Formats: sequence, structure tokens, C-alpha cells
Amino acid sequence: MPSSADPHRPADAGARATAHRLMAEARTAALSFLDPASALPSISRIGFGLGPDGLPLAFLSAIALHTAALHRTPACALLIGDPPPKGDPLAGPRLSLQATAEFLAPTDPGQEARRKGWLASHPKAVLYIDLPDFRFVRFRPLGGLLNGGFGKAFYMRPADLLPPS
Amino acid sequence: MPSSADPHRPADAGARATAHRLMAEARTAALSFLDPASALPSISRIGFGLGPDGLPLAFLSAIALHTAALHRTPACALLIGDPPPKGDPLAGPRLSLQATAEFLAPTDPGQEARRKGWLASHPKAVLYIDLPDFRFVRFRPLGGLLNGGFGKAFYMRPADLLPPS
Repeated sequence: MPSSADPHRPADAGARATAHRLMAEARTAALSFLDPASALPSISRIGFGLGPDGLPLAFLSAIALHTAALHRTPACALLIGDPPPKGDPLAGPRLSLQATAEFLAPTDPGQEARRKGWLASHPKAVLYIDLPDFRFVRFRPLGGLLNGGFGKAFYMRPADLLPPS
Repeated sequence: MPSSADPHRPADAGARATAHRLMAEARTAALSFLDPASALPSISRIGFGLGPDGLPLAFLSAIALHTAALHRTPACALLIGDPPPKGDPLAGPRLSLQATAEFLAPTDPGQEARRKGWLASHPKAVLYIDLPDFRFVRFRPLGGLLNGGFGKAFYMRPADLLPPS
């Protein structure tokens, strides 16, 4: 809801670079989704990474509540970038994305590259990466906000979130 | 959406203790809310603490997008508990709460105790705690999930989230 007091500016090159760094370094994200039973906002922590196509990726269990929710309502949001371990916890940069979740079948042509990339960034996933009820989920960003700390906030368009060329 | 494969158990004393510890130690939380413009799930990081009444509390700026959103739709969710700095980032315990946000007027009788408690836990807030466009927001939990790591998940009723007596 932009207003005259809206503190967000259009993304610049520095904002785009920070957003890409946050996505490339993140191993988890907070996922905002709609509870299918109540249609109320809900939230979970999920494993997070970038796929070989440069788009945000997760690897989700069929028994997780958020997985059933994303099947029902693919519109969701992700918060990427952990609070800093020291100093003002709200000074650390973070990226919030509004996105659409796409479940990828194991027969999808990119599966082997995704599996290999995910294991490289999430080695503990070797325990469950080949279980039959897990699926990769690709997030197509609809837009986002980058908060680089107090007073440094940017609107991110989908084009601002594409991999650097 | 509980099912026969639902991995969540009812909260026990250990789960309640972990939930209280996470809430007492947290200085930030991820907030899941509905974007007023699109009604789509959105997400932000906010400062988080427990109020003198033991209920979850935030201190929000009127110009933040999530503040306008909570005025419109007080139903929201919070994720509390940061990923561990080492080891499997999904092994760390976290609490997700569905809640209703209540804005507290500066004339509310508990304001001075809240202000003092917030400054003790969030010392950087001294920079803006007396600005006129900030408000405390109390979150009344409607329910929650505690995830203590792979395979350790609990349903939390509102009573499980009350301060220990």
C-alpha cells in the first residue's frame, strides 16, 4: 500500500546485488502461506536455495502442512536473509518475495541438476533426497522488497530478481 | 490439514518449555500477513519480544507496509527461533504461531512497563521508541506448531503458549 510516506525506492544496482547475494547464500527461508483449513496467514521455515536456472527453490515433504497449502494456494511469500548474530538484529539485510510455487515432477528434465545442486548446498538432505514423497518446488517471484536496514528499503520487480547476466 | 500422515503430536511439558524459551530469547520474528492490495500472503522481519503480560509483542512503524496490513487484517502468523549458526540449519527449533494483532494506544495503562521492557531487550529501539508514529502490537495466539527438528513436531494450543505459572 504505497503512500506519500512509503519509504521504499526503486531498486538500483546495489539493491539487485544484495538481493542476489542473499538468495545465493541462504540455506533456509521463512515461508508465508495460506492455511487451507482457515485461509489464515501461516508460516514455516523451509530449506531454500537457488536452482540451476537461478530461480528460488525448495525441497518439500508431502506430509508438511505447508506443502498441502501450496498445492491448494500457490501464492506465497519468502523471507530470505537471517538476522546478524551480533549488533542490532533489525540492521541485517533481508529480502521478502511474493511468489508463485510450482511443484516439479521427478521426471522434469532438470531434476538431476537440481538434485546435484541441492545436495551440494544442503548436504544433510542426503538423508531424504531420494524419498518418494519429497518434491522440488520452484518459486516464480511476482515482486519483492529489499530491506537493507533502517531507512534503506527498495521495491524489487521480477526483473530485478533474475540471475545476473 | 491434519491427516493420517500428520507428523505433529500434542504438546507436552518439554514442548511448552521449548516454546517459552524461544519466545523469551527472540529479538526478531518473521511476520506472515495479507497484503491489503492483493490479499496475497506477504512476509516481513519485525522486532519481537514478550510483553510484561507474557504475550508476544512487537513495536511497529506506521509507515511499514505490514502495519497497514495488520490494521486491515489482524490475522497473521509469526515464526520465532533463528536457524542455528552451525550444523543443519533445519535442525534448530522454531515456533510458528497463528495470532491476532492488537494495536495498543500510547494511553494504554501498560504502556510504561512495555516501553521499559522493550528498551531492556531491544536497546537500539531507543532511537525511535518515542516517535509518534510507532505503536506496540500485542499478538494473541490462536494456535501454533513447534518444530524441534526433523521428526519432532507438536501442535500448540493457546493454553500451551501462556506464560509458565
